[in-house]
Amino acid sequence: MFEQFSIEAPSSLFNQDLQHKIDNKTKPLGALGVLESLAFQLGRIQTSLTVDVSKPKMIVFAGDHGVVAQGVSLYPQEVTPQMVMNFLHGGAAVSVFCAQHKVPLQVVDVGVNAELEDHPLLAKRKVAFATNDFSQAPAMTSQALSLAIQAGVAEVDNALDNGVNLLMFGEMGIGNTCVSSCMMTALMGIDPEQSAGRGTGLDEGGVSKKAQVIARSLKRAEEQTGLPMAMWDAQTLAEQVGGFEILAMAGAMLQSAQRKVAFVVDGFICSVALLFAQKVAPHVREYAIFAHQSNEKAHKSLLDALHAEPILALDLRLGEGSGAILSYPIIQSAALFLNNMASFESAGVSDGDNI
Amino acid sequence: MFEQFSIEAPSSLFNQDLQHKIDNKTKPLGALGVLESLAFQLGRIQTSLTVDVSKPKMIVFAGDHGVVAQGVSLYPQEVTPQMVMNFLHGGAAVSVFCAQHKVPLQVVDVGVNAELEDHPLLAKRKVAFATNDFSQAPAMTSQALSLAIQAGVAEVDNALDNGVNLLMFGEMGIGNTCVSSCMMTALMGIDPEQSAGRGTGLDEGGVSKKAQVIARSLKRAEEQTGLPMAMWDAQTLAEQVGGFEILAMAGAMLQSAQRKVAFVVDGFICSVALLFAQKVAPHVREYAIFAHQSNEKAHKSLLDALHAEPILALDLRLGEGSGAILSYPIIQSAALFLNNMASFESAGVSDGDNI
Repeated sequence: MFEQFSIEAPSSLFNQDLQHKIDNKTKPLGALGVLESLAFQLGRIQTSLTVDVSKPKMIVFAGDHGVVAQGVSLYPQEVTPQMVMNFLHGGAAVSVFCAQHKVPLQVVDVGVNAELEDHPLLAKRKVAFATNDFSQAPAMTSQALSLAIQAGVAEVDNALDNGVNLLMFGEMGIGNTCVSSCMMTALMGIDPEQSAGRGTGLDEGGVSKKAQVIARSLKRAEEQTGLPMAMWDAQTLAEQVGGFEILAMAGAMLQSAQRKVAFVVDGFICSVALLFAQKVAPHVREYAIFAHQSNEKAHKSLLDALHAEPILALDLRLGEGSGAILSYPIIQSAALFLNNMASFESAGVSDGDNI
Repeated sequence: MFEQFSIEAPSSLFNQDLQHKIDNKTKPLGALGVLESLAFQLGRIQTSLTVDVSKPKMIVFAGDHGVVAQGVSLYPQEVTPQMVMNFLHGGAAVSVFCAQHKVPLQVVDVGVNAELEDHPLLAKRKVAFATNDFSQAPAMTSQALSLAIQAGVAEVDNALDNGVNLLMFGEMGIGNTCVSSCMMTALMGIDPEQSAGRGTGLDEGGVSKKAQVIARSLKRAEEQTGLPMAMWDAQTLAEQVGGFEILAMAGAMLQSAQRKVAFVVDGFICSVALLFAQKVAPHVREYAIFAHQSNEKAHKSLLDALHAEPILALDLRLGEGSGAILSYPIIQSAALFLNNMASFESAGVSDGDNI
């Protein structure tokens, strides 16, 4: 299933030269904080002392989830296709922010529970009309899993073949915080209470119910596979409790890293996709830029598990890639200070050694 | 001295309508976090249900400080004019980020210790070639204070008369974290150890020396005025331990609020300027947008005193307005979501009440 991915760590060739260049910009040592780490990471990934993130692309994967039948979301499933139309027509948050930054937006249907009309911004890669309700049966077959992964791979190949040099990923799917919490529980071997959160706005009772659905689903899967979840490989985990848009994102991240291109991780659901991708190929993590810490409860511990320090903390809990696109101008600033700021020498500014 | 400022609170006229508009955007309630508070604040300030921050301007005030004779900075005073030239020639961080966002940059010399050549981006409003060393004597006369305040007022009037609808302020001046810490100590009645920080990169010994210089300066000023610092009015405080660029920023903030235009506060030094402005006219605070929490030690407690929750926390400690300009695209996003996102009704998306 995942043999196509053999991801290498970014090159260390320019580490010293990059740090020297950063340190000699006209600013106190380290004074640009997170921007300096970003510039260093981008320089490593692009194996260059100047970096280019001028051709970004936002890819939003959309899919539906059988488990919503268990009442784990405030919103009805029909909102998934409605929001996809909203993305395409420019009315959603991610659309507005992509327009602001002139970042092209592509929406990929990998499992929306509706027939969608053709649209120039829509890629039709529907695996099925939704996953199965994983509290009752495996979420998907191995064939469906493969199709979801390949959907992500194909979209990334398409973007990179057209010169894109920074990828941003987002998602839409009613119920997908529940699916993500379930995947996180299995991936980290934690308790469902630690991974289940408010999603689009559940109250305490709703969150508790969500945790129970997750616990029941994992028990069902352990019985059906005859293996405790700690023993599952990536394929088993995905088939049992995955979601199409989450796995397509994981495939997209893996392919982006495979081709040595940095990608931006949005919020909780995207971070789970990365955690899954990391189980497949650990070095994928080093190509990831973390956009923001979301308001979703488990995101903090998930980011800690990924040793991630995100750029923004704006109390967002929207998904769609909205946090990723909001972080884009900061990533761009990191590239531009590395490329364009004067050095102490070039600007004729005395550095801190003079005193 | 400050009679010209009579600042009113922003209007509450549209509070309900603004909240209704925000809540009906196609997103879960509150899901855009900090962007929602920003949109609400901008709507109040502009007394409108659509807001406009499309004509921003960055104004960087530069000045020198006599107190650097006490050895409170890592960098020599000649760096102030060198960095001003770097701003003008496009090589500094603030220049690079202003260029990125196409935000016009204006540098205002209110007290640089050098004759500066004419340049289209430079406004010459020099009050003196530096303040006096306030560990020995008052920093400035009341006439000099008035000139510094008026420099800020005049630059803001000039910008607003030309259609600017969002102001950003920055500063440059070797030694000005020391001056800011001293002003903060007097304004908040705290201990110099609580306000003195690393500045451009002092070690522990340097920070401790800085705190001692501050303590000595305040003692000198208390003796000379015959008043404990808690009894000083704004004018006395500014004359005794102020800095030209900090007071020019305070004047600029007051004038911006007076004319009901939002302004962006950069890091530690800007926040001290606002704390001072707030002593003059408390409502000035409500027109302030806080760009970032800096790495400078005392900034956190200063932001708490201002009840401020800044947009970014990127571990910056550069000044120049660099944090303010980095926050600009986020402020713009807040405006654009309010103006351009679809509502549940307009997009035909079911809201959370359906379940």
